[in-house]
Amino acid sequence: MKHIESINNPKVKQWKKLLTKKERDKSGTFLVEGFHLVEEALKQGEQILEIIVSEKVDLPSRWDAGSTPVIQVTEEISNSLSDTEAPQGIYAVCRITPAEVQEAKTFLFIDAVQDPGNLGTMIRTADAAGIDTVVVGRGTVDIYNAKVLRSAQGSHFHLPIISGDLHEWIDKLQEKNIPVYGTALEGASIYTDISTSDSFALIVGNEGNGVGKDILASTTANLYIPIYGKSESLNVAVATGILLYYLKK
Amino acid sequence: MKHIESINNPKVKQWKKLLTKKERDKSGTFLVEGFHLVEEALKQGEQILEIIVSEKVDLPSRWDAGSTPVIQVTEEISNSLSDTEAPQGIYAVCRITPAEVQEAKTFLFIDAVQDPGNLGTMIRTADAAGIDTVVVGRGTVDIYNAKVLRSAQGSHFHLPIISGDLHEWIDKLQEKNIPVYGTALEGASIYTDISTSDSFALIVGNEGNGVGKDILASTTANLYIPIYGKSESLNVAVATGILLYYLKK
Repeated sequence: MKHIESINNPKVKQWKKLLTKKERDKSGTFLVEGFHLVEEALKQGEQILEIIVSEKVDLPSRWDAGSTPVIQVTEEISNSLSDTEAPQGIYAVCRITPAEVQEAKTFLFIDAVQDPGNLGTMIRTADAAGIDTVVVGRGTVDIYNAKVLRSAQGSHFHLPIISGDLHEWIDKLQEKNIPVYGTALEGASIYTDISTSDSFALIVGNEGNGVGKDILASTTANLYIPIYGKSESLNVAVATGILLYYLKK
Repeated sequence: MKHIESINNPKVKQWKKLLTKKERDKSGTFLVEGFHLVEEALKQGEQILEIIVSEKVDLPSRWDAGSTPVIQVTEEISNSLSDTEAPQGIYAVCRITPAEVQEAKTFLFIDAVQDPGNLGTMIRTADAAGIDTVVVGRGTVDIYNAKVLRSAQGSHFHLPIISGDLHEWIDKLQEKNIPVYGTALEGASIYTDISTSDSFALIVGNEGNGVGKDILASTTANLYIPIYGKSESLNVAVATGILLYYLKK
């Protein structure tokens, strides 16, 4: 097993740069942290490039790293790569793969969601609901942000997540007669009035402002979830769960 | 308006102590932070005891503080009370009121949820779904933790939230023929098999371990939400939203 002791090693410098979106975009790679995420990356197999492990940590014996290089580093190097207060001492560098979505029938479109915990939870929820593809529009927090990865709990390795222009995607689906549902508080239908179907796209939006007006104007229909109590709204990830599980039925 | 300049003023010391559960329990009061939460406390009216405002902040002109004392403090004092990185400079001390739940028909029971963001989002979701009462069992993060309050976005002022023994509550409701639904991955029915009803209790549990086995053994029925994709589970607040909106229909 390769061993790195110097925090100035070029590989260490490169890994640290992966904490920034700029370098992730440039290199086409991202860093995941923690046993669960590294294990999910290993299971999926195609995207993982190398495993980084602190000298204080043993790889679980059930893991089969196969031909994936494992690099041992000092505790100091390991901690310098972490985004968390209690680092687990294990990381993987993964490839951002161009997603194949030819066969996709169900979509979650995300417009300008800001909070990484919300975005990650929405990706995890889309995965659970069996959605084929997530498309993330302009103004949304980066898909490969460490907190997004953590909240998604490995779903990045389960379904394609694409950055794209939501207007173009809406046009493309409507040409195929796939209904596209926005979410809005005004001028919208109660979600339970919509028939469930094998193919659809749901659009959810920014925590404060919702889905952009220009996007809502180009949907097949817009939906709302009724508020029966006194709260002003639902959390966007909770709303996503309610709608996806309803639409999929 | 009363003005406090010294960080050693006894009132300031007392407010700071409210950042701990111990002092909240002892004094029967809690502190809320930020314009939205203070406004929700003012609207509800019965629980608010005093408003604390930084000398750099103006109260919004639409607010009617009525007879609620408003105390102006220095920026230093204001910041010392904050749990956030960008304090808004406005707080309210509120009374923990013994909740009236005689008429309640719908309940959310929470077993050992650890993450304050999850608990707050669950309280907000129960409020949105029109649930009458939330009961929080042993091992759950404190209801009045600053992050729980922030995530619940004012729902603490909209519905009773009680600490209680879930076993006693289950017995009490079952005596009244109110069905109590646990959530479990094994030995459970798919949630869409359950008939919706005017009165029920739903139990959701710990992020890692779910609802305790002893509790699941005493429910009317246990439910699960199917996972159609590859994720292992749903976030507990998302699951709560899916189930409450289904059961309420």
